[in-house]
Amino acid sequence: MPQPAQIDPFHAIGISTLAHKLKAQGASIIHMEFGQPSTGAPQAAIAVAHEMLDADRGGYWESAPLRARIARHYLETYGVTVAPERIILTCGASPALVLALASVFNPGDRIALARPGYVAYRNTLKALHMEPVEIACGPESRFQLTAAHLAALDPPPQGVIVASPANPTGTIIEAAELEAIAKVCRERGIRIVSDEIYHGLSYVGPARSMLEFEPDTLVVNSFSKYFSMVGWRLGWLLAPQRDLNRARAYVGNLFLTAPSLSQHVGLAAMDEREELDGNVEVYRANRDLLLAALPKLGLTQIAPPDGAFYIYADIGHLTQDSLEFCKDLLRDTGVATAPGLDFDPVEGGHFIRLSFAVSTPEVEEAIGRLIPWFAARAGSGSPQSPD
Amino acid sequence: MPQPAQIDPFHAIGISTLAHKLKAQGASIIHMEFGQPSTGAPQAAIAVAHEMLDADRGGYWESAPLRARIARHYLETYGVTVAPERIILTCGASPALVLALASVFNPGDRIALARPGYVAYRNTLKALHMEPVEIACGPESRFQLTAAHLAALDPPPQGVIVASPANPTGTIIEAAELEAIAKVCRERGIRIVSDEIYHGLSYVGPARSMLEFEPDTLVVNSFSKYFSMVGWRLGWLLAPQRDLNRARAYVGNLFLTAPSLSQHVGLAAMDEREELDGNVEVYRANRDLLLAALPKLGLTQIAPPDGAFYIYADIGHLTQDSLEFCKDLLRDTGVATAPGLDFDPVEGGHFIRLSFAVSTPEVEEAIGRLIPWFAARAGSGSPQSPD
Repeated sequence: MPQPAQIDPFHAIGISTLAHKLKAQGASIIHMEFGQPSTGAPQAAIAVAHEMLDADRGGYWESAPLRARIARHYLETYGVTVAPERIILTCGASPALVLALASVFNPGDRIALARPGYVAYRNTLKALHMEPVEIACGPESRFQLTAAHLAALDPPPQGVIVASPANPTGTIIEAAELEAIAKVCRERGIRIVSDEIYHGLSYVGPARSMLEFEPDTLVVNSFSKYFSMVGWRLGWLLAPQRDLNRARAYVGNLFLTAPSLSQHVGLAAMDEREELDGNVEVYRANRDLLLAALPKLGLTQIAPPDGAFYIYADIGHLTQDSLEFCKDLLRDTGVATAPGLDFDPVEGGHFIRLSFAVSTPEVEEAIGRLIPWFAARAGSGSPQSPD
Repeated sequence: MPQPAQIDPFHAIGISTLAHKLKAQGASIIHMEFGQPSTGAPQAAIAVAHEMLDADRGGYWESAPLRARIARHYLETYGVTVAPERIILTCGASPALVLALASVFNPGDRIALARPGYVAYRNTLKALHMEPVEIACGPESRFQLTAAHLAALDPPPQGVIVASPANPTGTIIEAAELEAIAKVCRERGIRIVSDEIYHGLSYVGPARSMLEFEPDTLVVNSFSKYFSMVGWRLGWLLAPQRDLNRARAYVGNLFLTAPSLSQHVGLAAMDEREELDGNVEVYRANRDLLLAALPKLGLTQIAPPDGAFYIYADIGHLTQDSLEFCKDLLRDTGVATAPGLDFDPVEGGHFIRLSFAVSTPEVEEAIGRLIPWFAARAGSGSPQSPD
């Protein structure tokens, strides 16, 4: 008989807990362990929140104006026409992913995904008693799965999760490859779930939506990253017409509605491109600083950081135990990072992920601390941690 | 091979959609179809929201003060000591229920529940590929499942969902029966999930927590009802120590955190008992008005409305098709109600649920419209609807 799935802990949470403990003891901490903007929602959206706090008592509600505005966003950004009723608003991207998987796939279904990848993909699949089919992706495919990977799987999986820009790497899948993936999925009957949560955060030209190439894609997205609204818990599933009735029945039973104030704020945020693009320029500056500094840290093997706000770096010359490495780094320098083991149970022991969604002075300070530490580490092999 | 579960639509949503359409056409609508307070969060909590909007940018966050405050609530309200880390904050009670079920039970597990009951219990179980074991509960057991029901199930189910006060009936399970249920569940190895979302809304003395009788209960609760914070999407799962690591791993992967502003507001709301108890007094007045009026409507068979804010009434002398009945009632009078079919696929054709979580003038107005309509309906059998 099947059992509730054993799910791996998210080690970055342990790192963050340690960071807060050290901070309480007086340490100066720089939080680069989570993919969380240090900025808040746009100021004009906060002003709307003040207004609506007094005007709207807040009930079970799905904002028709927000769904229409998101539909307009698909037309303006990707040139794709989307009926607003296909947008299902959720409490962040996480329940949107649960919704997509649970309402479309069956227990036992095999779902392909890139390794390294966001830890919750694998764990959510396991929690829903589906089988993650992890495709090892390294530098040769820019750490992304490809049409060739999907063509080679025998038997074909029932589904695939595509993420571009990806977590933890930030790599973007180019248009031609997205098109090739869509084609092989159509031919082999593979349903596509596309996590587009990092769209808007790109340093090499805009990311394309899988929706441009496969209209039957289940698209997951959120206000947490580009729109800088992490704590507002607002995301959406864009469901194909064929899945819509079932997805709506699932959301009405499993989750109900998204926070009502967040929906007002999200709608206002979508028109604050100037402030939000300003945040992206900060990330771009942070990324440039880190890319210039990485060689001084001896980190020369990194995934192409096309988008998102991550550097995923190979530290195989220093350790095979990224979790202990991250703890040592945190204790010695106050810089919190995420161990690659969160994203890749096989190769992740020799990777770390740095989030640069912090302020530029914090990045500068972090670099100043990291350079001597990495130099010492490279010299000594394994320096003692202070406790 | 198993398939994604077919889930029934929530008919009350269809009724509500029709109500909004009629309102747009100029009709005067009284919304008694949903279990949603017409009041907002307490005023002092809204003031805190204004403050925190400017002070807290909002990130992935689980409020330690709120968890401690909820733990204190268990001590003060039920005399039960609870470690704050056992409180897992969620985006409402719905994901808390998903979390409890998915992290503790297995696909194929049989979970007992009362019929009539909240539609999402049955549907969430089906979505998670568990088997709802519905126990027909009528007037003889006050529409609640009993220890005797659970003792008679052969083989014993793996779990049971207990709801007191219940939706749609409002009935409360008395202490002695809760104790008997706890005992039979211990003896037969049945895990208890207790939905206590309507606690605080009681007209016959306070409801007791299943936690007082079985420490290993998984308790689901929310700020949506007594705390009048529906749109804030804030709830919690109180997990037993034995399930805690798994439940935490599940929430971190499937859902992440609750809305940060809502956590500030919820913490403030918990100290606003005077305003909140004032809301309950409005419900009590509404309930008294309805109980006095029901005989004039010819509705003499109702579930004991001990708590929550519902009247669940037998309309078998008027119809066996509660959905059409509710539509007729809405079109003719503007009073929106929920058909029993949402709560009981077997007997629900001859029940309706009225929510009295509206204002007292609305209840008075509704009664004024309902009395002649029910009189005409009883006289004619089936009056024509206007379209």
